[in-house]
Amino acid sequence: MATIKDVAKESGLAVATVSRILNNRGYISEESRQKVSDAMKKLHYQPNEVARSLSKQTNYTIGLIVPHIRHPYFAMLISEIESAASEKGYRILLFNSKSNTAMQTKYVEKCKSNRVAGIILCSATVTEDNLSGIGVPVIAIERFFTTATASVECDNYTGGKLAAEHLAACGCRRALIIGGGSNTKMPADDRTTGFIETCAKSGMSCIEIKTTFDEYNAGDYHERINSLLDQNMASPENIDCVFASSDLIAAQYIQDASERGIRIPQDIKVVGFDDTIIASLMCPSITTIHQPIREIAEKSVELLISAAADEKVPARVTLPVRLVVRKSTAV
Amino acid sequence: MATIKDVAKESGLAVATVSRILNNRGYISEESRQKVSDAMKKLHYQPNEVARSLSKQTNYTIGLIVPHIRHPYFAMLISEIESAASEKGYRILLFNSKSNTAMQTKYVEKCKSNRVAGIILCSATVTEDNLSGIGVPVIAIERFFTTATASVECDNYTGGKLAAEHLAACGCRRALIIGGGSNTKMPADDRTTGFIETCAKSGMSCIEIKTTFDEYNAGDYHERINSLLDQNMASPENIDCVFASSDLIAAQYIQDASERGIRIPQDIKVVGFDDTIIASLMCPSITTIHQPIREIAEKSVELLISAAADEKVPARVTLPVRLVVRKSTAV
Repeated sequence: MATIKDVAKESGLAVATVSRILNNRGYISEESRQKVSDAMKKLHYQPNEVARSLSKQTNYTIGLIVPHIRHPYFAMLISEIESAASEKGYRILLFNSKSNTAMQTKYVEKCKSNRVAGIILCSATVTEDNLSGIGVPVIAIERFFTTATASVECDNYTGGKLAAEHLAACGCRRALIIGGGSNTKMPADDRTTGFIETCAKSGMSCIEIKTTFDEYNAGDYHERINSLLDQNMASPENIDCVFASSDLIAAQYIQDASERGIRIPQDIKVVGFDDTIIASLMCPSITTIHQPIREIAEKSVELLISAAADEKVPARVTLPVRLVVRKSTAV
Repeated sequence: MATIKDVAKESGLAVATVSRILNNRGYISEESRQKVSDAMKKLHYQPNEVARSLSKQTNYTIGLIVPHIRHPYFAMLISEIESAASEKGYRILLFNSKSNTAMQTKYVEKCKSNRVAGIILCSATVTEDNLSGIGVPVIAIERFFTTATASVECDNYTGGKLAAEHLAACGCRRALIIGGGSNTKMPADDRTTGFIETCAKSGMSCIEIKTTFDEYNAGDYHERINSLLDQNMASPENIDCVFASSDLIAAQYIQDASERGIRIPQDIKVVGFDDTIIASLMCPSITTIHQPIREIAEKSVELLISAAADEKVPARVTLPVRLVVRKSTAV
């Protein structure tokens, strides 16, 4: 295999000059660059990025830790983070914590020992303590930690507000919220707050059901929804609309309600959250709150790279959401 | 930051001994291991995996190149590959080629320069040439290349056969296949072959529509399906069942057909392929061919690790599929 010495010899330049060109350091004439490029091609020289990252103490790698990969929201988020990172010349080292705190801690260690430029962390369970003294920037998505470098989230409160305003405008008066469940205070809880406060203003009644963390991890809400339907709590007898805190919950509600002959949207209107592929694929398609997943991904990568370069970054960034009207709320 | 020398000093052992312990090389007494472990904890010593991989020429990293991340099939596959790799102590470096051949080639180079143990490649466009002389094991999923180390695929032919047998048993006589499209010969083409040959045996008529590669990349078949519906080619006037080569196509067909008042399964029965989250979430839920995604992932990781250790591996592994009956074919 050709080495940097061979490239230097072939191009007639000093090894130090070739190294500066490969690492893009200091002033280099266009002519020297061309010589090195030609020599590299001729010799099939492949810079060893492992060795380069050792000397630079960073390796253009971002550690990405998520609680799920197959959940449509995280699949989209991973896709957008990979794109944003790739455009900036960064690679993604992907870890699936399965919402297990011990695995998260292990993966944070893995990231550190692999000298990543920084970590993007999506976690409902990690605590402030787990994040202190990590030594590389940590960008938290949809969580706010004082110990993280920065947090990026969507405007969850406005999302809940837009959902309630839309349902009120559709003539709904009695809402059921099937919300996310967690022991920890999460930014996503603001969805419910925004919804409830707006219901109160428009005179709409509103019952909130919190799902559990186990249901979130399994991605399976059918048992819960069927129990609500059995008690008529999610049926036209008692409500005229459902606000689900994810498209996944909304889709499972539509399935279970349809099974019992409840017509969506004629009997009950449904609004989801996220705007994942499920929302557009369901029958009927689901009116939802669009999360700016691409912008969240781009902002997270941008903040990570800035922080890794010791630039000051804002501690908390909130990105706007919007309502996407589909058939589950047609009047 | 503590170094290996500090650990050696603290534990009273030679640097070479500590290095052997960290790299798990040669015989080491349990007592020495314990001393080093205690010293590492006391000094907060973090082995630099970048430096270790440099000396070992591998770094327990698998390069995973996929054409899509958000597509439900690939989201599941990535999730299962990450799990299987993590269990064996390997990490995933994830690249999204967006089905772009130039990007695939670039990412293969990135994998090589990062000294990955091997590459798992999912690609409809890469050619035999692109894979020759890579120098690390390449495991191809759902493609067969003589230049790859090994190929792992599901039993696509039997999948098509099971779908046709099931539809015939449901009383269907006139089938429409909405198939995958590609310029290249793909193992997935065998789904159609298995379906057509079984139709012939059971006296069922069968029309095949090939979708395009652009439709596959966009994940959007609505225009195509609506055009088939406009021409009555996908309506009860002409057919009584649809075999779609993915759950995504099946779901979009159910949406567009329902819009026109066609009842699934009463008017037309539908069978998909993959058994992704979409199949169980749709209304009606979709009868489909279950791809053994977990087994494909585990086998790919196992073959990669074996090949990286210079063990002989089979060139081609085909894993069994099964029929999952849901409501889209209820009689």
